[in-house]
Amino acid sequence: MERFFDSELRDLKQKLLQMADTAQAMIGLAVKGFVERDGSYEKRVDEMEAQVNRLDNEIEDEVIKCLALRQPAAGDLRFLTATLKITVDLERVADQACNLAGTVAFLLKEPPLKANIEIPKMAELAQNMLRRSIEAFVRHDAALAKSVCEEDDAVDAFKDRHFRDLQALMKKDPASIERALDLILMARNLERVADHATNIAEDVIFIEQGRNIKHHSEEN
Amino acid sequence: MERFFDSELRDLKQKLLQMADTAQAMIGLAVKGFVERDGSYEKRVDEMEAQVNRLDNEIEDEVIKCLALRQPAAGDLRFLTATLKITVDLERVADQACNLAGTVAFLLKEPPLKANIEIPKMAELAQNMLRRSIEAFVRHDAALAKSVCEEDDAVDAFKDRHFRDLQALMKKDPASIERALDLILMARNLERVADHATNIAEDVIFIEQGRNIKHHSEEN
Repeated sequence: MERFFDSELRDLKQKLLQMADTAQAMIGLAVKGFVERDGSYEKRVDEMEAQVNRLDNEIEDEVIKCLALRQPAAGDLRFLTATLKITVDLERVADQACNLAGTVAFLLKEPPLKANIEIPKMAELAQNMLRRSIEAFVRHDAALAKSVCEEDDAVDAFKDRHFRDLQALMKKDPASIERALDLILMARNLERVADHATNIAEDVIFIEQGRNIKHHSEEN
Repeated sequence: MERFFDSELRDLKQKLLQMADTAQAMIGLAVKGFVERDGSYEKRVDEMEAQVNRLDNEIEDEVIKCLALRQPAAGDLRFLTATLKITVDLERVADQACNLAGTVAFLLKEPPLKANIEIPKMAELAQNMLRRSIEAFVRHDAALAKSVCEEDDAVDAFKDRHFRDLQALMKKDPASIERALDLILMARNLERVADHATNIAEDVIFIEQGRNIKHHSEEN
């Protein structure tokens, strides 16, 4: 027979998935607004942020309740503490989506830059990393989590190339400076989404392997 | 007579203070390197990051141990879960310090820009916010935490002004573009430090008032 606690954990996992899906979809919508030059997505992104924040509050309350009432054993305890850390990242992914949507709103007031802009490609990579980091958490899949960590470099490489291209454009055409800065900002927002996905993936490896790889690997 | 658990909590608090002090000092050193145009601080900042990471691992292990063995009651439980969330922020402040030190290393290869640069002033504000957010946590001082949240706007205003000045400089003098971009980056790193301090202060208010103000205030 299932313990009552199992259904609580399942509910918590479900809410975490929902929070991740929403945050990830917000990034997609903000970038869709950029690609389609449609300012109407900003409001939708802001509305979704309210959902993410509500889920964040609910998850935190439930984790504290589980810790207080259930005296969870090792594996469940680690799941609960990791959940708390993961919600910090998801909440900030949602913040990045709002920042993106705000920057898009500015950019739409001006004609588009004729630059080789890889924002949608970067967004796709970062969203994918986020989805897979949460999938790794739910499936207890350390190998999947590792593959997410490895992809972070690809996003950084995109961002660096994007940065160099836009810097060259600014030099050639000073009238492009404001818009190029906004595009650099957007790339940095997406880089941060990939960083959050990487943080989550590191937490998953920590739970699954019971040790904290993130700092060890940095120190080497 | 003191419970054994009290001394564990005191030890944990001490480690958290040490982690915060170190992260905050890293920001100071990175900016000192910028002001004094001295590249030797970068190595010191990197060494201190290893300390922050070690403390992060130790704190996480101790929190999990306390949760597993002590069955903490409401107040202590909230302290432990908030500690976990606060270490996420402190670890990222240390990351920002490393980013700052790396950017300074690039900037030192070029002659300084003749711009009205407010990086040291912004750094001072952000460091101060960080110090006070942790002080608020340790002293259970929700009023102090609120004052930290209110200061975040001042840092943002600094960053916006800095951004506008540098944008004007880039337009006037395209040869300044790389360096101006680096300075914009530094201001954004410091803005993020202030954001982390604000997150910590919000956690303190959450513990002290037993409710999560951060999202409520955003939604209003």
